[in-house]
This record gives sequence, C-alpha cells and structure tokens, in this order.
Amino acid sequence: MRRRTFGVGVIGAGVVGGGVVRALIDRGTSLAEKADVALCLKRVADIDPTVCQKLGVDPNVVTTDAESLIADPEVDIVVELIGGEHPARELILRAFSKGKHVVTANKLLIAKHASELCRAAEKHGVELRFEASVCGGIPILKALREGLVANRVERMLGIVNGTANYILTQMTRGKKSYEAALADAQKKGFAEADPSLDVEGYDSAHKLKILASLVFSTDVDLDEIHVEGITGITSDDVRYAKELGYIVKLLAIAHRSGDELDVRVHPTLIQQDFVLADVSDEYNAVYVEGDIAGTTLYYGKGAGRFPTTSAILADLIDIAKDIQYGSVGRVKPFVWGPKLPVKKIENLQSRYYMRFTTVDRPGVLGQICTILGRNNISIASVIQKAVAEDDEKPVPIVLMTHACSEGDVHSALEQIDGLESVRDSTRLIRVE
Amino acid sequence: MRRRTFGVGVIGAGVVGGGVVRALIDRGTSLAEKADVALCLKRVADIDPTVCQKLGVDPNVVTTDAESLIADPEVDIVVELIGGEHPARELILRAFSKGKHVVTANKLLIAKHASELCRAAEKHGVELRFEASVCGGIPILKALREGLVANRVERMLGIVNGTANYILTQMTRGKKSYEAALADAQKKGFAEADPSLDVEGYDSAHKLKILASLVFSTDVDLDEIHVEGITGITSDDVRYAKELGYIVKLLAIAHRSGDELDVRVHPTLIQQDFVLADVSDEYNAVYVEGDIAGTTLYYGKGAGRFPTTSAILADLIDIAKDIQYGSVGRVKPFVWGPKLPVKKIENLQSRYYMRFTTVDRPGVLGQICTILGRNNISIASVIQKAVAEDDEKPVPIVLMTHACSEGDVHSALEQIDGLESVRDSTRLIRVE
Repeated sequence: MRRRTFGVGVIGAGVVGGGVVRALIDRGTSLAEKADVALCLKRVADIDPTVCQKLGVDPNVVTTDAESLIADPEVDIVVELIGGEHPARELILRAFSKGKHVVTANKLLIAKHASELCRAAEKHGVELRFEASVCGGIPILKALREGLVANRVERMLGIVNGTANYILTQMTRGKKSYEAALADAQKKGFAEADPSLDVEGYDSAHKLKILASLVFSTDVDLDEIHVEGITGITSDDVRYAKELGYIVKLLAIAHRSGDELDVRVHPTLIQQDFVLADVSDEYNAVYVEGDIAGTTLYYGKGAGRFPTTSAILADLIDIAKDIQYGSVGRVKPFVWGPKLPVKKIENLQSRYYMRFTTVDRPGVLGQICTILGRNNISIASVIQKAVAEDDEKPVPIVLMTHACSEGDVHSALEQIDGLESVRDSTRLIRVE
Repeated sequence: MRRRTFGVGVIGAGVVGGGVVRALIDRGTSLAEKADVALCLKRVADIDPTVCQKLGVDPNVVTTDAESLIADPEVDIVVELIGGEHPARELILRAFSKGKHVVTANKLLIAKHASELCRAAEKHGVELRFEASVCGGIPILKALREGLVANRVERMLGIVNGTANYILTQMTRGKKSYEAALADAQKKGFAEADPSLDVEGYDSAHKLKILASLVFSTDVDLDEIHVEGITGITSDDVRYAKELGYIVKLLAIAHRSGDELDVRVHPTLIQQDFVLADVSDEYNAVYVEGDIAGTTLYYGKGAGRFPTTSAILADLIDIAKDIQYGSVGRVKPFVWGPKLPVKKIENLQSRYYMRFTTVDRPGVLGQICTILGRNNISIASVIQKAVAEDDEKPVPIVLMTHACSEGDVHSALEQIDGLESVRDSTRLIRVE
C-alpha cells in the first residue's frame, strides 16, 4: 500500500502540546518506518505565538486562530490540548463537521460529553481518540477496549491520580502531614497551585467515568459516582492503618454485581501485600479482574509531558492507519449498551475503618460499641491508645468493622458523633 | 457497515483449544455486540474426537483431519493450538496458501520461524497473530506494538515463565528447597512432569526472542540469547540474597545500548523494593522502559486455559475486524529492520553475587579477594557465616561485587575454583 502523509494540527502548545509538537518534528521519520504511516505537523495554534517560537516550530505553521487550523485542508487530524470544557467541546465538534479526526487528552471533556462527542464523530465518519486522558503513558484504554475485549470485567480498581498518590506516599513513607506532603508535591511539580481537582477526587472521578463506561459498555453518569477526596486524611490515619496491616490509597473503584454498578472514588484501606499497595509516588496503576483473563494490572506514569505525548502519538498512528486502510470506525471508542443502575452509597456493603475522637474517660468505648451493635455493625479489631494526662484532652479510638451496610454506619455515626464524650466528627475510611 | 460472520476453525482441542471452543460457543453473541464483529465456530480438529464430544461441540463440526479444516471454504481464520514445531509450521503455511488467517499460541514456533511465517502471511495477503504466545492473559504484544509504538524501548525486563516464578516464590516465601518447590508446582499443575523447558530457561528465551524482536524492530536470533535456568539455585542462595536486600527471579532481559543488543535469560538478583520483586507465584510481568512513556509494567497470568483464551479471542476479533473493514495488514506483527549485533556475555558489565564453597580455614577469604582484585573485580559486601565445628566441612562465603566485566569474572572464577581450599564450583548470579 502506498504510504500517504497525514497532516496533524495541534491546538494548544503548552506542556503536553509542546511535547507532541517536538515529537512530530523530531521522530516523524523514524515513526513512519516503524508504524508504516507518515505524520507531518502542518499547523500549531496557541494564543501565545512566542511559545511556538521557543519550540522551534516553523513560523509559517504557527497561528493564533484555532478555527483556521481546523479549516486548513492540509490538516487531517486535530489534536486538542487546550483542556477544559469550553471552547474545547465546540472546537472538536467543529473539527468533526469539517471531516477532521480528533485526538484529545481532555479527561474533563470526555467525562462530561463522551456520548455526544462519539455520536458526532460517528455521524461525520471520523474518529475520536483519547488514550492520553486516562493514565498518561499507560495504554490502558487500548488494553481494555481491544486486549481484554473478550472479557466481562467484574471489578476494576485504579490509582489514577498521581498528585493524590504522591501525597499519600509522602504521608506513609515520609510520615509527613497532609499539608507538608501537599507542599512537597507542589514544590516537585506533582501538584498544581490549586490542587482541588486532584485532592478532592474529581479528577479521579473523570477518569473512572471513562474507564467504567468502557468496561461496562454503558454511559456511566459522572453525577452517579460517589466522590470523596484525601483532604481529611491525617498522618494518624495513615499510621493506624499501617498498624492494622493496611495502606491508604485514593482508589477509583468499579464493581458490577449482576447488572448493578458500584462506582466510587474515595480514600481506601488496602492490604499491605495487595499489588496496588506498592504503586507509589506519582505512579498510576489500574487493576482489572476479567472473567477469563483473570487479574491483570497496568502500571506507569499517569501524567507529564512525555508520557502523555506517548499516548497521543499512539492515537495519531491508530487514526492515520485507519484513514490509510479505509477502516475508519474499526474500533469504537465506547459501546453504548443499555443504561445500568448505579448502587447508592447507602446500600454499599463494606468493611470500615473508624477513628473516633473522644475524651479519655471510662465507658466511652463501651458507649460506642453499644451504638455500633444496635446498628448491626460488628467489630473486627480495636486500637485504643495512650492515656492522656489531661483527661479532657481528646484521644483517638480506632476500630475496624466486619462487613456491614453503609446505611447502618451512617445511622450509628450520627448517634456516636452526638455523644457528649465525642469531640470531633468520626473519620470513616472504606476497606477494599 | 453490514456485519459479516467469520468462520473459525480450531486445530487442537486440548486445554487451551477447549477453552477457545467453549468461549466461541458460549459468548459468540455477546462478543458480536461488544466488538461489532461476528465469529462462528465452523470446524474443530483433534486426533481424539471424544475430546470434542466432551466439550459439547456439534459432531458435524468435528474432524480428525486438520488439512480438511484448513481447506474448508467456511473457515476464514485458523487457530493453531497443537503446539510444537512440526506439523504446526506446515499447517500454518498451508493455511496461508489457502488464504486463511492464523492465530496461534505457539511460542516455540514463533520464536524459531517468526520471519518465515510473517513473510508467508504477507505474501498471501493474510494475517498472523500470536498474542497468546507471550504472557497469556496480558495483552503485552498489543501494548508494545501499538500502545508504545512511539517509544524507543531501551530496556525491558520480564518474568515470563510462571512455573519458574512459582518455584522461586516457594523457595523465597515458603523457604522450600528447589526440589520441594518443584514437586509442589507439579502437584498444583504449575509445572509439567518434564519441567525442563521451563526451569532451564528455554521457554523464557522463546518469549524473549518475540518481545525483543518486537521492541527492537529486528530479528533477534534465538541462538544469540544467553540462557541459564534456575536448577542450580539453592534455598541458601535465596536466603543470602534476602539478607543482602535482594530477591532471586528468572528474568528475560533485553537492553539496547546504541545499536548493540543485550538479550539474556538467567536467574537475577533484583532489589526487594523493585516493582518486579512483588510479582509472585505463577504470575508474569513485563517491565518496559520507553524513552517517552517512561516506565510501564504489565502484570497478569501468563498461562492457563482461560487467560490464553482471552488473548486468542482478542486476536480473532482483531483479524475479523481487519477482514470486515478491508484493512488486512494494518498492523504488522513485526517490523524487520536491519539486523543488530548482540553483545557476547563475556562483554557484559554487571554486578555479581558469588557464593564460594570453601574449607573453613584462615586465609581463604584473603586468597579469593586477592584473585578477584587481580582481575579488576572490586567487592561491595561479604557474608561469611558460622564457623564449622569440623574444619574440613565446607562453609559458604557470599559476596557481592561492584560493576565489573563478565570476562574478568570468568577468569577469576577459573582460578578460584582451582584452589585447594575451594570445594565446589562457585555459584554466580547476576544483579540487575
């Protein structure tokens, strides 16, 4: 087959865009040999043209006008790297309407508009790819979509946010406080000045929506994902968890039981010898239980200029091959099967870690245990520490429950947190 | 696009073949929905027709004649699962010549005849896929070939043999002898009655040849891979390694420095906190260093009926899609770039673990150190254990070297093993 050269237009020449632009310039030829498909950078759009100059891009290729990039007849594939919801959504829809294929790393946009965007791409006979939107350098979407295609996935657990994982690793290994760990992450470039999307779990939820929709062949609503972040985790929690044989991780969890889904993001206690316990620092990993492949795990860097560039180039090559071979639409980004019900968090059955903050007086543990018992919650183990010198100074009581219902837990904690001897709201962490 | 149904013929209905046959019967419809491509089991060939009966296959579909399966006009894709070199090679070549696509799990055959088979498939305009030949349920070939396509891989380390890994895990965790661990593996079905291919490293070498040829875009000769098995590893070695902070694993190693390759299979000491150290029991994992994706790791079950079936079904769907979309040849199984030189093991630079078996007399350690020093080998640490009551009873001396040349190590050991005070040949394990 005669090799055609496909024109690429990159919108947004920031951290990731710069990586893609440089890679297309630097390794276009070697890629063409290896992948048997030729890509050529035809246009770069950025509101700041000096950025492109610094990247060493031919000035004739640079524009500040994304619309003109999309309209350029030499551009076959548009790479959207401006992030955010608007105008990214509108630019991508415009690109589709002009017959352009699109690659994006925009997880927020895909999480919110996957169905609309995929249908628009299909209508216009073009492709949409977004491998870079989940776990950067790990080809996880391809693995789930193609490699594990024959499997019914029953359970998937992901560490999909490098910032939160870095902070929790620092709290565990470096015994730092949350605040000190966050400051360290910011200093090292693993956390942004406003880290809320990462530490409050929303970024993980965006990725979980994409992963869960993929493996469950349904459109999981972002709003149906229960989300809790790591901002309330203290170094005490990390230390007590360790004493009990667990590690705290921010997990993106997707279960299926029958046709009911259970999708949530929250700090989770996992056993120290579980394979995800060793995923440290800014690394990501996704653990997948398929009904025939069994357990597989995919590990790597979830963000950063170069890992993300690796995923974007793979998408570009996939699309270019489909154009070259006339096989556009060969692999659908999602399979939109019937909508599946999502379990309410109150109906969850789980084991729980509870840390109570109480005054150090006889009978407090008894009161707590009585309330738990009345709510059908049975206790697996207790850590009651140190007697305070001042009996008015709050002390922690930590316990692990056997499996029980979250609804019962909420009722119990409402009563417990109302006790005169309890001085702060109880910290609850689910166990997986 | 109107969906066509593709006929599949399975040759060999043993452990894996049975899994594939049942999966095609049981989940053909759900697969068609999910993957948008329809597969139908048209023929099963096995020398023992009662096997097919037990699998519940329609008797009209069963044959004992593989040739007639290949010739059947209803069969579009042939799945070869008889294993071994002959007649598998001839059957596959025959299938190509009749315009049939082929999926195989035959690592020995691909390792020995990859180039011939790929060229024959290309000549006849058909596809050859073999995801199941390396690491069963882990879609590692797809990850390397497509997901990481934009990367230059500099280093790859694999635990690719579940039998050897199970035995080493039993020796490490269960503190068993090699013989007891092997017997346990055989009892649990993780080792065959004749385990030599697995424990002597040849099976790992077959997989390494496939992996290395893929990532280095060249035909790595099986004969150029240096192979050592785990049969000489003792529980003492495992224990001393642990004292030094290491774990013993059978690794398949592929390095590239400049355009020189370094490909070898041997027991290897890896640090206890290295990510591959936690790959236990019968699990496999491949660790890949790409120049832009950075480190990624792929983990899962490397063998067994169902994991292997998962990989074969993924290949079948890939091929069926390419037929349906007219994109046969879209992704080449290998890119055959120029032949690259392979480093001779004598030229390796590595750190080494050495266990000497000596009489317990003053001056022996001194003799050994002197010889090592004369051969440019410097010592990083030493364990000298227990004074024997009987000074003629051999005692071990264990040491770790700094990086040195394997040629120098061989010279030194030749002299050391000739010493009157040295009672057995020295055990040498490379450190990665």
